[in-house]
Amino acid sequence: MTLTDTAYADRVEAAGTFDEVVARTRAALAREGFGVLTEIDVQATMRERLGVDREPYIILGACNPSLAHRALEAELQLGALLPCNVVVFTDGGATHVSAVSAEQMLGMVGNPALEPVAREAGERLARVLESVGRR
Amino acid sequence: MTLTDTAYADRVEAAGTFDEVVARTRAALAREGFGVLTEIDVQATMRERLGVDREPYIILGACNPSLAHRALEAELQLGALLPCNVVVFTDGGATHVSAVSAEQMLGMVGNPALEPVAREAGERLARVLESVGRR
Repeated sequence: MTLTDTAYADRVEAAGTFDEVVARTRAALAREGFGVLTEIDVQATMRERLGVDREPYIILGACNPSLAHRALEAELQLGALLPCNVVVFTDGGATHVSAVSAEQMLGMVGNPALEPVAREAGERLARVLESVGRR
Repeated sequence: MTLTDTAYADRVEAAGTFDEVVARTRAALAREGFGVLTEIDVQATMRERLGVDREPYIILGACNPSLAHRALEAELQLGALLPCNVVVFTDGGATHVSAVSAEQMLGMVGNPALEPVAREAGERLARVLESVGRR
């Protein structure tokens, strides 16, 4: 498992085809209580809207309802940063899964009431990546 | 027009019912080249998943395909922060529209190649809010 973290997202390389990795990612999200509320097929969207060809790329909008509810109770406007995105894409022949860093994102808000929610979301997303990154 | 900006989102109060404001927001986004790729009815989701009642709240995932394409060419993992969320919600009897701050979000990435894209997205979203906030 290769882990590459940036300031805004954590990433693992995953074995298997793109479609297999997407399926494993969905299953891992479900185990951590995240429903996939939105889905953007970036490759198809770019082909359709711009006529450009990109490699496979999907953006899954993952939402753990009870965490989202707690977050919105603490910060009504927070929907601007929800749901938590988990993306699957190919790069250099390998498939990668990347999850937005909940703690970095919610840290930007500067509302201490969000800290425990952000920590829990971050821990759950880390377990998703760990599980998907395993062979 | 009341403008309340936070570190992560800019917000206006808008006249009209919730549904009217959602319709005006969609139209304003279209004028600025943003398609609405995803849509989360937070009120319905929370009712269905948790059995809790919240006020009307919708999260629109807005994507300007050519800006998104430029952003992904500069930073492949950036899908973790896309699309740009624009939310409509009621608070204290008034309807509010809030757009994620593209410049703050993309600033977190620390990739100078994203700066012009972030600036353009931010300007377009500011015009959306300005137009929706007008009576």
